[in-house]
Amino acid sequence: MSVNGAGPELDAAIVPLRWVGPAKITGNVMDELVEIPLATYESPLWPSVARGAKVTRRCERGIVATLVDERMTRSVLLEADDAGTALATVRRLGDSLADMRRIVSESSRYAELLEVHHQIAGNLLFLRFEFATGDASGHNMATLAADALLAYIVRVFPGVRYESVSGNLCTDKKASAVNGILGRGKNVVTELLIPRAVVENDLRTTARRVAALNVHKNLIGTSLAGGIRTANAHYANMLLAVYLATGQDAANIVEGSQGITHAEDRDGDLYFSCTLPNVIVGTVGNGRGLDFAAANLARLGCRAERPAGENARRLAVVTAASVLCGELSLMAAQTNAGELMRTHLDFERSSSDGEN
Amino acid sequence: MSVNGAGPELDAAIVPLRWVGPAKITGNVMDELVEIPLATYESPLWPSVARGAKVTRRCERGIVATLVDERMTRSVLLEADDAGTALATVRRLGDSLADMRRIVSESSRYAELLEVHHQIAGNLLFLRFEFATGDASGHNMATLAADALLAYIVRVFPGVRYESVSGNLCTDKKASAVNGILGRGKNVVTELLIPRAVVENDLRTTARRVAALNVHKNLIGTSLAGGIRTANAHYANMLLAVYLATGQDAANIVEGSQGITHAEDRDGDLYFSCTLPNVIVGTVGNGRGLDFAAANLARLGCRAERPAGENARRLAVVTAASVLCGELSLMAAQTNAGELMRTHLDFERSSSDGEN
Amino acid sequence: MSVNGAGPELDAAIVPLRWVGPAKITGNVMDELVEIPLATYESPLWPSVARGAKVTRRCERGIVATLVDERMTRSVLLEADDAGTALATVRRLGDSLADMRRIVSESSRYAELLEVHHQIAGNLLFLRFEFATGDASGHNMATLAADALLAYIVRVFPGVRYESVSGNLCTDKKASAVNGILGRGKNVVTELLIPRAVVENDLRTTARRVAALNVHKNLIGTSLAGGIRTANAHYANMLLAVYLATGQDAANIVEGSQGITHAEDRDGDLYFSCTLPNVIVGTVGNGRGLDFAAANLARLGCRAERPAGENARRLAVVTAASVLCGELSLMAAQTNAGELMRTHLDFERSSSDGEN
Amino acid sequence: MSVNGAGPELDAAIVPLRWVGPAKITGNVMDELVEIPLATYESPLWPSVARGAKVTRRCERGIVATLVDERMTRSVLLEADDAGTALATVRRLGDSLADMRRIVSESSRYAELLEVHHQIAGNLLFLRFEFATGDASGHNMATLAADALLAYIVRVFPGVRYESVSGNLCTDKKASAVNGILGRGKNVVTELLIPRAVVENDLRTTARRVAALNVHKNLIGTSLAGGIRTANAHYANMLLAVYLATGQDAANIVEGSQGITHAEDRDGDLYFSCTLPNVIVGTVGNGRGLDFAAANLARLGCRAERPAGENARRLAVVTAASVLCGELSLMAAQTNAGELMRTHLDFERSSSDGEN
Repeated sequence: MSVNGAGPELDAAIVPLRWVGPAKITGNVMDELVEIPLATYESPLWPSVARGAKVTRRCERGIVATLVDERMTRSVLLEADDAGTALATVRRLGDSLADMRRIVSESSRYAELLEVHHQIAGNLLFLRFEFATGDASGHNMATLAADALLAYIVRVFPGVRYESVSGNLCTDKKASAVNGILGRGKNVVTELLIPRAVVENDLRTTARRVAALNVHKNLIGTSLAGGIRTANAHYANMLLAVYLATGQDAANIVEGSQGITHAEDRDGDLYFSCTLPNVIVGTVGNGRGLDFAAANLARLGCRAERPAGENARRLAVVTAASVLCGELSLMAAQTNAGELMRTHLDFERSSSDGEN
Repeated sequence: MSVNGAGPELDAAIVPLRWVGPAKITGNVMDELVEIPLATYESPLWPSVARGAKVTRRCERGIVATLVDERMTRSVLLEADDAGTALATVRRLGDSLADMRRIVSESSRYAELLEVHHQIAGNLLFLRFEFATGDASGHNMATLAADALLAYIVRVFPGVRYESVSGNLCTDKKASAVNGILGRGKNVVTELLIPRAVVENDLRTTARRVAALNVHKNLIGTSLAGGIRTANAHYANMLLAVYLATGQDAANIVEGSQGITHAEDRDGDLYFSCTLPNVIVGTVGNGRGLDFAAANLARLGCRAERPAGENARRLAVVTAASVLCGELSLMAAQTNAGELMRTHLDFERSSSDGEN
Repeated sequence: MSVNGAGPELDAAIVPLRWVGPAKITGNVMDELVEIPLATYESPLWPSVARGAKVTRRCERGIVATLVDERMTRSVLLEADDAGTALATVRRLGDSLADMRRIVSESSRYAELLEVHHQIAGNLLFLRFEFATGDASGHNMATLAADALLAYIVRVFPGVRYESVSGNLCTDKKASAVNGILGRGKNVVTELLIPRAVVENDLRTTARRVAALNVHKNLIGTSLAGGIRTANAHYANMLLAVYLATGQDAANIVEGSQGITHAEDRDGDLYFSCTLPNVIVGTVGNGRGLDFAAANLARLGCRAERPAGENARRLAVVTAASVLCGELSLMAAQTNAGELMRTHLDFERSSSDGEN
Repeated sequence: MSVNGAGPELDAAIVPLRWVGPAKITGNVMDELVEIPLATYESPLWPSVARGAKVTRRCERGIVATLVDERMTRSVLLEADDAGTALATVRRLGDSLADMRRIVSESSRYAELLEVHHQIAGNLLFLRFEFATGDASGHNMATLAADALLAYIVRVFPGVRYESVSGNLCTDKKASAVNGILGRGKNVVTELLIPRAVVENDLRTTARRVAALNVHKNLIGTSLAGGIRTANAHYANMLLAVYLATGQDAANIVEGSQGITHAEDRDGDLYFSCTLPNVIVGTVGNGRGLDFAAANLARLGCRAERPAGENARRLAVVTAASVLCGELSLMAAQTNAGELMRTHLDFERSSSDGEN
């Protein structure tokens, strides 16, 4: 057997990046016009999100982004003597919350234990710990804290043994229902009310057609596909592009992709909303230290002196806003036969002629 | 409102990349030792996949990778007068397959219509077209062909109207069951039989413990989480890293993450397999034209003169093999309390001291 | 330990049964007014379905019921030497379809092999056989045929061994996506176009409100709940009642419950449809031989001299129509605050005063 | 159009019922030998459950049944001005728990508010109320309480309007993930440790084969089928039979079917467990008043003078134990080629010759 020989060292993937917008964002976290960085190999994403952003600037309140919740999770797995022992352990843990909170606080400066959820299956005990993690996305902080909690539990409670630091009830980067139901990452709802004239002129469609398409495609079509807590056209594209541009662990687009688009025809105006229960971003940690990522975060205003957590919340809201821009643009395009392909081809042609 | 001001232009995200391995791969597509490029912000992934690759070199047949199927899909959405008309249309399409095949062939040099699946819900008709697409991942080829088929259908058949070029039954970059059941992308099964001594020395665990953990965590834990066609620890991480390194549309890790790890204790030896029904890769098209991606594909041997489709199949198999390497390493680590966090911290410390 | 002592022998559960309707049914199977038998402990179901049936009589075409497909399934599970052997087996089976069809025909007078679907996971091979089964629901016929096919496969093909006559890919009486995607039982779509005046007078609501509620509750609400291929209010109730009344294996309401309600406001008229991909009924076999069930089937016109399969198709359509009646009535009721509880209480009070 | 003419009035479905067992049950609710009533058209279920029950009598602790949790749920749906208003409402509700608890207590003698879970999607607010409901299964009690809470909420909080008394996040009789994750009905885990000799003699198999089949079929097979929180062979059959025999709303087998079988080979002994998160039973209310049902409940010891809730807990545990008996028997049978069909045919033949 031969090995594919090493050529000249290529020590990075270079993902083309553009800033688009600005998008107009209001709500309970920010009130600004913000340009959005998108790193992607799929260049037609840029004009698509840009079109959505342009629309937001023509709407009175812009995108109203509501941060509903935030937490990072890690589930540990214990083997108990039997289900009765597992249940007894759960009840004892309920009496030991103060100890557990202390252990978590000691494991990391910013970690705080919020809640503990459990599942018992046979003699297996799954404990899903939920933490506040400041400006970090919190994967490592949660694992560190879970390790400490595990050590405590197997030391203090009889009849339970270590099985795994992750029991997949977390659940990290996998398609499931638990993250939407119990929460993981930032839960952000974005809403935009678009006047009829803007719908017709900028999006070349009508509120009635977008609302109908959303029901037929995103809701019914996804249900027929056996989708799980998913009703959207392409959240994953925008999430990937912002995550890469800002140094995030982009594999979290798996759960990020599980969100719900809801649209209504309000007397010709279009109400368009994207609910993203699992935006997982941080402004400190791993990839965020790379020069370009740090610069992009700074330009986004996410490296400012703010109370812990505020920078990450801001980034989550910008990310969610970018999702709405791209989702709106694609949905509008798909109401017209042939438009999607035509704009893709047009853009790729123009790009290869010059700009790209 | 102020806008976040443009700083010096950053026109790319720079994702650190390393080659790890080689992994030993055999099966129905290739028989070689292959180094694997991983682009990621999560640097502990490198030593983790490297450890798995090292193990494969100590196994007689290495990773046996079986390519089971390949196709790219696009579902269109039509509004019919009623369900009866939708059903009549489906039956007429069954009689028009020759026409449809011709239309597809004319839309693109490499596209070929394989199958048409339908779903009727009320008066909505979803048609899921499945195509062979040569060495391309095929997103655009499928959309182009679907556009042509749609135009034909609404012109020829009475009582059905255009609703969308995508009805979400495709389904692209969303968590669902349909892609695994009907197929989308390359379906690759990887298997590795690891001698007991290698399990103990290189993976610091036993076959019995890995097999039990796989049942408890990947199968039961994921089921409790409401997972859908998913039973693995972290396929998404490896898929993202290879996709970015080779210029793929990495948002396809969403469906890619939906695969199944199966492990058995065979008298102390460990049978370890990863089933990936939705590996979506191409060796031509979009991001693959970027210099670094082209160079990486070339080094992988995926730019050779081969019959159409062979380069992409090779890439799919290498991708799937990298998944097995990373999955195996993480599963082994999680059988030992504290090991995961310890190795992460060790690696990050050593990296920031020097290599990284 | 003591045992709960046997009292006087009670050798049956007596489930109260009423005939409601008639409902007006048209479409590709029948064109009639049909009364529907409902056996249930939940007596408010009777007036609810009766109200829906009354509405159908005021609509020009009544319920238009379209039978889209029919088949019964059984998946077997084989252990192969490895995935390559599993794939080779699948390919050989493709060349042995004539043999397989003959084996199935010999196993039972009415059984006919329609299609074979496969899934490979690691070294496991799942084969999902789909059969036509005449007027029987086909559970036993499918198992008998699968047994014969299994015996043939393990005898003829090398490297595969018996693992189970059912591999849960069938899937029988379990919540999954496969039955809707690949088909199991009768697939029936029912549609009803209700004039505005009937919506307002008989259902005390408007088309706009029912359509909005359907989106908010059945589509979005179910998606948030982590529902799978499900978008309805209570199909299971009607299915259970008809199944019990006609001697069916009522545990099949599990997959039966997985269907999709779609409603539209058409200029004030209400388009209301129920798509039921998995109606599993037969007019011969097991419970259908009980006196009351035989009498009910006869009264339904499902014991007539007809070509094989016609009686079962008729029963499937009546069942699906009863689902639409009950679904419509409940959805309309829920658009009005307090109505559901009020009518339940009213009915239960009036019933206990007298009729019940 | 003609109507199917009324024949002689048949005012009930007569479902054949037998008592099987007794099964030996211990754990945190009861410690007894209990015979189990099964009403079913599928007569082979009787000998199957009987075989399982016989096995339980040969195991030292019998079935150890652990009641883990209990609650009944109803989710209401509100339309808010926007997501911000929905979030504000959620926070105000958090401050109004005392009021809400009082309202619930006043709505019904036994109802008690346990928890409130929320989901926000766009401007839609779903509130999932969880109640203790004494010995009732609690459907009506929960609806009554939800009605009262809804009236309070729309009266007291600004910007939210009634949309539905059920928003499908409950979720009642539909396949979803939420009921298992958040709880609905009784959560019961049953476990049985079967000595090797009993496995071999009474079940004609080995622990190793049952454990392997459980992984291959119930876990992997169901995952491939796109199953949701489901890993079992046929819970629905036993649930239906006990529910019908005791006057329950049997449509709740839909969520009841979503449970997890876990089996282990413990040095030749078989550990076999069934986890049923959603057993929905009551000993008072609707069908429970029918003479035969009341008599069956009495014979089960579920009509005794006990603290509120104890009778229902007892019934839940008996129900769950019957599920284990039937699941164990079928799984053992499927490890042997041809056994399932042979025993079915044998039983049906013997039954039609005489007893049935």
